[in-house]
Amino acid sequence: MIQEAGEPAIRPSFTTVATPMLDAETTSRRTVGIGMLGMGVVGAGLARALQERAAGLAASVGASLAIEAIVVQDEDKRRDDDLPLHLVTADAVAVLDNPDVDIVVEVIGGVEQALDYVLKAIRSGKHVVTANKDLMARHGPEILDLAHEANVSVLFEASVGAGTPIVAPLTRSLVANRIAALRGILNGTTNYILTKMELEGASLDQALVDAQRLGYAEADPRSDLTGSDAARKLAILSSLAWGTRVRDTDVYCEGITWLETRDFECAARLGYTIKLLAIASEDRGEMRLRVHPALVRKGTAMASVDGVLNALEIDGDLTGPVLLRGAGAGPASTASALIADIVEVSRGIVGGLGRINPVNLAREVTIQSMAGLETRHLLRLSVTDVDRIQRDVIESLRDDGVLVDHVTLEPAENELVLLTGVAEETVVQRAISGLRLLDGVLEVSSVIRVDG
Amino acid sequence: MIQEAGEPAIRPSFTTVATPMLDAETTSRRTVGIGMLGMGVVGAGLARALQERAAGLAASVGASLAIEAIVVQDEDKRRDDDLPLHLVTADAVAVLDNPDVDIVVEVIGGVEQALDYVLKAIRSGKHVVTANKDLMARHGPEILDLAHEANVSVLFEASVGAGTPIVAPLTRSLVANRIAALRGILNGTTNYILTKMELEGASLDQALVDAQRLGYAEADPRSDLTGSDAARKLAILSSLAWGTRVRDTDVYCEGITWLETRDFECAARLGYTIKLLAIASEDRGEMRLRVHPALVRKGTAMASVDGVLNALEIDGDLTGPVLLRGAGAGPASTASALIADIVEVSRGIVGGLGRINPVNLAREVTIQSMAGLETRHLLRLSVTDVDRIQRDVIESLRDDGVLVDHVTLEPAENELVLLTGVAEETVVQRAISGLRLLDGVLEVSSVIRVDG
Repeated sequence: MIQEAGEPAIRPSFTTVATPMLDAETTSRRTVGIGMLGMGVVGAGLARALQERAAGLAASVGASLAIEAIVVQDEDKRRDDDLPLHLVTADAVAVLDNPDVDIVVEVIGGVEQALDYVLKAIRSGKHVVTANKDLMARHGPEILDLAHEANVSVLFEASVGAGTPIVAPLTRSLVANRIAALRGILNGTTNYILTKMELEGASLDQALVDAQRLGYAEADPRSDLTGSDAARKLAILSSLAWGTRVRDTDVYCEGITWLETRDFECAARLGYTIKLLAIASEDRGEMRLRVHPALVRKGTAMASVDGVLNALEIDGDLTGPVLLRGAGAGPASTASALIADIVEVSRGIVGGLGRINPVNLAREVTIQSMAGLETRHLLRLSVTDVDRIQRDVIESLRDDGVLVDHVTLEPAENELVLLTGVAEETVVQRAISGLRLLDGVLEVSSVIRVDG
Repeated sequence: MIQEAGEPAIRPSFTTVATPMLDAETTSRRTVGIGMLGMGVVGAGLARALQERAAGLAASVGASLAIEAIVVQDEDKRRDDDLPLHLVTADAVAVLDNPDVDIVVEVIGGVEQALDYVLKAIRSGKHVVTANKDLMARHGPEILDLAHEANVSVLFEASVGAGTPIVAPLTRSLVANRIAALRGILNGTTNYILTKMELEGASLDQALVDAQRLGYAEADPRSDLTGSDAARKLAILSSLAWGTRVRDTDVYCEGITWLETRDFECAARLGYTIKLLAIASEDRGEMRLRVHPALVRKGTAMASVDGVLNALEIDGDLTGPVLLRGAGAGPASTASALIADIVEVSRGIVGGLGRINPVNLAREVTIQSMAGLETRHLLRLSVTDVDRIQRDVIESLRDDGVLVDHVTLEPAENELVLLTGVAEETVVQRAISGLRLLDGVLEVSSVIRVDG
């Protein structure tokens, strides 16, 4: 039918399809029913914002948004009085099988329970709005497939950059563009830690303790520090940007755990700071996806992304680079994105429009390894004698195919800091192995790719 | 009916209303007809992009987008062969009265002719997409009112930041937020000139000639240099952010024509650069809107907005500051935004949804003058003797209620450069008048507000 009108999309997009069954309700509908799964910090923030802003949102949608039920694990847990406690229940049926619920908002987090609920909601013909990045990174394609069959919308702006608009600009505002690359800072916790190491000379451990104290880092910070949280977000965004099914396991991922304060000092001397970058690029069906610390030139927009901020640069062929930056976490910000998606779906319901979904993820692409990546590197070497070894190091690298652009001698630290020219990843790795064998080189302390 | 469901919006929003007359076509529609008004640089870019990307866009929309006619002033003008020349006509009826045209795209620019066409198109029941900021800044409210009555959409993303997504993030992604302030660099021409003055020490005249040579500035650059172009964009954005009717004449506007290379040198010494900022803020129905050069701290995101880039920071109460940055001009980038709006309207047409419009601009606000604005200022004074006059200047300012935070003596230039504390605009202006009367002060060369 309508879907056949065009040939396969050059990139994914929100395809809207009319839902005839809703047409009858079009002019009489006064309420859109919302069922919430979960009322932790994010859920409570959402419930509060929906209550507080009810009048304005109703005017935006053309119908009021009514929370019909809120499913929680423990009904008897003490909760703040300003929340709609009379709607709280431990019985998921109150949301999933409730005919008054049009939109299910999933804010329980985690993967298995959330997946089960979301699939059930879709099968019951309910639209879904979620803030769950783990769920979307692991099961996004199957969820979207099922939503497509069931003719319902699944929106997930909040899962990537909390309230910072990223999914909508990428999939809607930039719909006419072929995307060459995505490049960003997608994890606020690590960015807070790196900012603290840079500006205050804190150690990674000190900065982490501080981040935990402020609630920016979880008690178990592994998914942040290893880069896997950023990799999940990059997988979601890359799937949307190139209309394909990228999994987080497709992303080369290097964390920040080995970074030292010394690395920031060396980077600063060369005019750089260090950021955990998430980068994806596509060229004729070949994609490369990576998350790793990188030297970013000071004075650029990406270097100015400090603290818990997130940022994404989208390189569209018509627009050129577009940068989106804002808080990447926090209950209020997450509520902002959840409500934007709820409003979007609700307008469709009120207007008789059906699904609003990024459905076309069918494109086949090849994921390239890091082997062929060409970048410059910062190498920090612990040596016995900086003056004596300098020449040997440069010659060894050159013999292995890596030219050196810049050398800093750090006799007080017994360190040599080198900035290489552009070279292929495999060549660089081999050359570094060569350095390790060199008499007088005690350790290759750091190897950091240079961005741009 | 549906519009009554909510109380007045706390802020404006895209209200979607079903258009029953379109419902019958819902499932059978295979083509959305586009009529173009104008085929200058922007129009040609749009026509090319629509042709080139037809398959992908058709898949996005669920129907193909067909250009039905292109109205130009001079039919016989020589045009590139790759354009759909068989559709070109000098007769506006071919678009405005063509039943196959669903969406009229206005890219002729200027105000009077464009307004006439756009109003006619709306009265003929056609949706309108425009890139015309002069038109929207001067006649936006009346156009949107008429569109509301006629139940058609008028979208204008391209009129603000070309392809950089600004209108959609502000009105849709951030719909749940109360906006406290907008702050940005909204004119690429002046930003190019200021960047060149900062980085290369060029004079304003040299930088302007360079901008004209590169096509960034018009032969008559007045609307850029005086800040009125930025003021128009700020008026459009403020109307949307606060659901009211701001005119460009409501914006206090100070251009860049008096800036000298020396100002950049003095600013740099204090850790600042100079940008032409557009700032709007709202507090309990009181708005202040202003465009003027401002000292912006280096290392911040706004300071890193170089060359012809535009940027807007939106301060939402749920999200915190969200920054959007990208090219603010150029035919390809403008085509990107025009197509995004065309796709948005087309999906509505295909899905049987009617108007998608920011219709609620009814809120009454008070526009505040600059008198009560509290900022810091950089003052550059030409004096007879820096050492002798220093104390008199500081005392004169203090007596008039302005404290001085920092003084730089520039004996070689016979200049005193002062950074004041925060003070009210009226107080500062009076204090500056006082300085002019002071023995030994030859001239107050520059008065520049400090951002933040």
